[in-house]
Amino acid sequence: MKIDTWYGILEIGSKGEVLASEPFPKDIRELALRSLSLRDSRQNLPPEGFDLKAAALECKFVESPSEYYSLLHEVTLDAAKIQVSEALTPDQRIVQAVEALDDINETTNSLSERLFEWYGGYFPESGLNGESLALFIVKYGSRENIAPDDPLYLKARDSMGAKLEAADEMLLKGFAESVCSLYGQRRQIEAYIESGMEVLAPNLTLTAGPMLGARLISIAGSLEKLAAFPSSTIQVIGASKALFKHLRDRAPSPKHGVIYSHPLINTSPWWMRGKIARALAAKLSLAARIDFYSEKIDPSLPEKLEEKIQKIRALNPRPPQKRPESGAKPKKKRRK
Amino acid sequence: MKIDTWYGILEIGSKGEVLASEPFPKDIRELALRSLSLRDSRQNLPPEGFDLKAAALECKFVESPSEYYSLLHEVTLDAAKIQVSEALTPDQRIVQAVEALDDINETTNSLSERLFEWYGGYFPESGLNGESLALFIVKYGSRENIAPDDPLYLKARDSMGAKLEAADEMLLKGFAESVCSLYGQRRQIEAYIESGMEVLAPNLTLTAGPMLGARLISIAGSLEKLAAFPSSTIQVIGASKALFKHLRDRAPSPKHGVIYSHPLINTSPWWMRGKIARALAAKLSLAARIDFYSEKIDPSLPEKLEEKIQKIRALNPRPPQKRPESGAKPKKKRRK
Repeated sequence: MKIDTWYGILEIGSKGEVLASEPFPKDIRELALRSLSLRDSRQNLPPEGFDLKAAALECKFVESPSEYYSLLHEVTLDAAKIQVSEALTPDQRIVQAVEALDDINETTNSLSERLFEWYGGYFPESGLNGESLALFIVKYGSRENIAPDDPLYLKARDSMGAKLEAADEMLLKGFAESVCSLYGQRRQIEAYIESGMEVLAPNLTLTAGPMLGARLISIAGSLEKLAAFPSSTIQVIGASKALFKHLRDRAPSPKHGVIYSHPLINTSPWWMRGKIARALAAKLSLAARIDFYSEKIDPSLPEKLEEKIQKIRALNPRPPQKRPESGAKPKKKRRK
Repeated sequence: MKIDTWYGILEIGSKGEVLASEPFPKDIRELALRSLSLRDSRQNLPPEGFDLKAAALECKFVESPSEYYSLLHEVTLDAAKIQVSEALTPDQRIVQAVEALDDINETTNSLSERLFEWYGGYFPESGLNGESLALFIVKYGSRENIAPDDPLYLKARDSMGAKLEAADEMLLKGFAESVCSLYGQRRQIEAYIESGMEVLAPNLTLTAGPMLGARLISIAGSLEKLAAFPSSTIQVIGASKALFKHLRDRAPSPKHGVIYSHPLINTSPWWMRGKIARALAAKLSLAARIDFYSEKIDPSLPEKLEEKIQKIRALNPRPPQKRPESGAKPKKKRRK
């Protein structure tokens, strides 16, 4: 009878005596990998009551019980390490990317503003900001270097801005380059999230779009947690401040959290938004569950959502008679 | 008699009649520049009561009084533009650079932290952070690419970190490159401030160091304002929160603001710091005034400061008997 052990392949007799043995080399990492594959395969297991340590001594794999145990300790520790290192699941990687994207966004905006203010002293009439300003500065530096065929040429020539000294020009160009690199980085992360979401959560991506889907996973913590949320939670994810104000101060309940960024909501008239948000959240919750539990793609989801939205639109063609008060002001009466 | 006007050079007789004229071309920018240089030179001014408009008509520079006035309007407007554009003084440029440096610092730190957390999942044992981590990632990407002669080789081989997929590796490398570019940008701005401060405020630079000097100018708003501050203000610049707490809550008065970063203060024992801060602030105030009003370099300033500090050290060799309470806690009794 042949059995696989963590230290080698043994041929044993009916009474458990070792007939032949083929011990592995004493490399910790290799032994750990073998023991993990052994655990997964579950084939050629030793019979019950079989003494692995005695067999290891018998086939001269180790020379003493203490050596056996210390080696076993190291191998299991290494196997644990290997398992830990495999724990960074795709949805965790998406969450990391979303967080990095938020950081990049904040950073890019603050440096862009600084660049705008800084360069404003030298060419206030440019009318550029953000990436186009950074690209302009990287290209020309001082407005004196502007090409005559550039649409900003006349403005640059007649500008009230100060003369840009060579040292400042170098500095501003470097700064603008950093800003451009951050904008590029932002696009790269967005592309990563988009392609990653299509693999990780195709239904959620189909229904919510990749960025909103990724943000929902990021706020929930993982796809598993998002799939466990009721749709009413998904509806107000990201609006926790308004939600607690509602629970504490009898303010109106928030109608939507981060899902507000979905075009179905933010392009709809205000009196439909709450209803659409509820329908959307229901479908998002469904999509997350399909993604997590079945991994199949259900192309009918967006269609059904569209149908539902059409119904809502048909049933609410006009704003309600009494316009509700502004949401920021706490109401005296709790809404039913 | 020859006179210079904004529209040309005239030769006039004793009664103000134009004998000969040499009008300039009708280019607004050139006329504006000439009128500015005319204002600065103050030579060949027309005699009192001389009618410039009539002479302009007489020498055929313009054809009607209305053309004369509209041209004059445009030229003076353009001259004003030129003057405005020269208003970005060297100290304002230093202030801009200090503000940009603050933004860059904040940004770099936040992105570095994000990189540390992100890459931590893949190589938690690296022990690197900040720029060295970013450089490591740019160089190797995944820890599997580490060179065998790298001191981190063994740690990388046995790391518990997850396997870095190609898409994530590309993303992390790009992110790390942006972080490196920001670190480089930071060094560039610092070098700019250092060289700029040596020209703008050599005495302040000598006494405070370029970065602290620039920060003082930046908080004050300009070198002129800094030169106008009493030294007691310079001592607590940047500690406004503590100062107002002192004025409101009877908390102890702050001993130092941003000047705490000066090595004379932060390397001294705590019981001398207030005295040294006062001496330092006095010399800084002096230095700023010399820089603003005389622009000469006084190399004796740091020597005198050193003498004063030696005296303070000699007179306060030991901490005072009763250790004052922690500064954070408001005191019941106002300090005299």
